[in-house]
Amino acid sequence: MTSEPFDYAAAIRTIPDYPAKGVMFRDITTLLGNPRAFRRTIDDLVQPWAGSKVDKVAGIEARGFIIGGAVAHQLSAGFVPIRKKGKLPWETIGEDYALEYGHDRIEIHVDAVAKGERVILVDDLIATGGTAEAAIKLLRQTGAVVEAACFIVDLPALGGADKLRALDVPVRTLIAFDGH
Amino acid sequence: MTSEPFDYAAAIRTIPDYPAKGVMFRDITTLLGNPRAFRRTIDDLVQPWAGSKVDKVAGIEARGFIIGGAVAHQLSAGFVPIRKKGKLPWETIGEDYALEYGHDRIEIHVDAVAKGERVILVDDLIATGGTAEAAIKLLRQTGAVVEAACFIVDLPALGGADKLRALDVPVRTLIAFDGH
Repeated sequence: MTSEPFDYAAAIRTIPDYPAKGVMFRDITTLLGNPRAFRRTIDDLVQPWAGSKVDKVAGIEARGFIIGGAVAHQLSAGFVPIRKKGKLPWETIGEDYALEYGHDRIEIHVDAVAKGERVILVDDLIATGGTAEAAIKLLRQTGAVVEAACFIVDLPALGGADKLRALDVPVRTLIAFDGH
Repeated sequence: MTSEPFDYAAAIRTIPDYPAKGVMFRDITTLLGNPRAFRRTIDDLVQPWAGSKVDKVAGIEARGFIIGGAVAHQLSAGFVPIRKKGKLPWETIGEDYALEYGHDRIEIHVDAVAKGERVILVDDLIATGGTAEAAIKLLRQTGAVVEAACFIVDLPALGGADKLRALDVPVRTLIAFDGH
């Protein structure tokens, strides 16, 4: 258990009106670039699973790859990439998810997880939770037991964490911001 | 120093005729998904720098994010993303590199590295080295001292590693495959 609280809000850069007017973009690159903050983030994200056996960590392209790679290393687990459509070279299964306008698709290798393996899903931020929900469906199709979903940033007004909890997936986040 | 040799070729899946006829694609997802192989890979990649101070690890989107995130964690360094054009939210500098047909562009945040910081560049594979060369130029523009470039897979017939060494960057790779 980590002792002192860490000021995640101060380590994350907020960029007003990016990518569109009225949006406050939470830029985690300042946190990742700070060695102490990066290490603390990984420690805090996995703290509930530090003593337990996790088989694999699944990261969502692209920022989820950075955090997921470090989390998998920390837990001595394997890493599973969940990628945008057409990026994985082997046989895949895919799942559509809604965007503000239209939809997109993520994919996973059919043999990425063996039946019954315990998997933690990782991404940098949860907003509406559409991508994470699709990722959980894909992982379950491979036979994975999804132990938890972990994110640095939560935007609770958008309801994503609640959506995942309704799928019986525990959700861990480190810092919540108002708005979206 | 790690004791026994590790069979990287056996841990990597080779997919014939992907993405085009005649290409042998080296799929590292099988290596990443294997906890022992993934950990060994990270240990082996950074072994020359295990005792020295590295400020930051720069990973190239997208597979370089997975490996770079883990390497940064292992070295207790910060992580710097080098992304495709238009993906970074803050002020950037960019560099074009040649593709087989046409060209593409990678970018880095202008404040990603402080002058004089020691940086290791990481990606999954080096082929012609065009992307890695562009990444080294960008890192040097930020004031970074590029200590080394590390890749799991080398395709020496394509000359990428030699191209980086000509820029005075030591190159570390774990497994070489013939052809391309």
